[in-house]
Amino acid sequence: MKIGIIGSGVVAQTLGAKLCELGHEVAIGTRDPQKLDDKKNFAESLRGWLTRVGGQGKVLTFRDAAAFGDLLINATSGSVSVEALKLAGADSVGAKILIDTGNFLDHSRGMPPRTPAAQDNCLAEQIQAAFPNLKVVKTFNTISAPVMVNPRALKDGDHTIFLSGNDGGAKSTVSELLRSFGWIDILDLGDIASARGPEMYVALWIRLWGATGTGLLNVKVVR
Amino acid sequence: MKIGIIGSGVVAQTLGAKLCELGHEVAIGTRDPQKLDDKKNFAESLRGWLTRVGGQGKVLTFRDAAAFGDLLINATSGSVSVEALKLAGADSVGAKILIDTGNFLDHSRGMPPRTPAAQDNCLAEQIQAAFPNLKVVKTFNTISAPVMVNPRALKDGDHTIFLSGNDGGAKSTVSELLRSFGWIDILDLGDIASARGPEMYVALWIRLWGATGTGLLNVKVVR
Repeated sequence: MKIGIIGSGVVAQTLGAKLCELGHEVAIGTRDPQKLDDKKNFAESLRGWLTRVGGQGKVLTFRDAAAFGDLLINATSGSVSVEALKLAGADSVGAKILIDTGNFLDHSRGMPPRTPAAQDNCLAEQIQAAFPNLKVVKTFNTISAPVMVNPRALKDGDHTIFLSGNDGGAKSTVSELLRSFGWIDILDLGDIASARGPEMYVALWIRLWGATGTGLLNVKVVR
Repeated sequence: MKIGIIGSGVVAQTLGAKLCELGHEVAIGTRDPQKLDDKKNFAESLRGWLTRVGGQGKVLTFRDAAAFGDLLINATSGSVSVEALKLAGADSVGAKILIDTGNFLDHSRGMPPRTPAAQDNCLAEQIQAAFPNLKVVKTFNTISAPVMVNPRALKDGDHTIFLSGNDGGAKSTVSELLRSFGWIDILDLGDIASARGPEMYVALWIRLWGATGTGLLNVKVVR
């Protein structure tokens, strides 16, 4: 599949590399695709990413990446996601699936980051409302990047990832992608409003991270 | 131990019955202890509860229950908890431990209930601020009443309960109580501000309940 990723940070690069490994063609979209070295070191730079993924990966503008992908991924920080998707022209790319991985995190008052997610402040709902043409599926936001792409590394994959979205077909496509990553326990929470749950859960995730000292964690829904 | 429970609903009655079973003396505090039959049926009434628990349980006013207990439990709905604790005179009972089980749930717009918990709206923090003499320990709010008192009924108890509070000794006492209920995986999240995590998580719990069709569920922290 051709996949366009909006955002160029750790989540974008980690998902992008995994998707290339699985044989997909991936375009990372960034504000200025000429700035390949705009990171502290080579490993974190987009040039480093391009070197790692080889010919299946490229770096484009937001707009070109959104046009390139048959499926899109929002991997920007929640506070800038709607703006980045506007820059990407996401309102005019047609009825594409958009996987929203974003979270509102406020680091302005130090650690732990504050979590402005609330029943009236749900990023996935805001994106779906701003871009009604897109089929928004919320997932990936409840785990750190290494767990997203390698769930089996944690208790043989016996833990849960959540899906929310209004379009059943889009959720099926995303589920298939998740299974190809190694995910086993994929729980469909319901429509896009159900994304309030996993977005607000991030406030607990941050405390779990603090209490256990590792971001390599997740929850398993026991029922 | 002598335990005073503020509140008389399902959580109060379920915790109270379990505590009586374990040999504790329990007083349920309610607005009007003469109204023992003020429920739809006998089983849910305080008279029914008194019949079930026998001599170890009694029903008192909020104030008398708070005075009676060496350890207190808030089992009221989050929206009325601070008011109920004021009525109970919780500011003048000394340095007692208060287990806060409460959640903000708003049923005014139908199902699923809305969850006003947020980083700036944390019940446990509000109770600790209003009653600085109390040693507030947040726990039990992430599970339904049947799971609170019988964790082993769900996957042999292999799932997680959270603790938040400023007082280490109080958290040790509450941990002991949790172990006597059958809890194994008890995770201390940190100070009372860490209760924002489990309080906001309830937004996810509600979606899990909707998606799985059962309230007999919990999460296991996998790390």
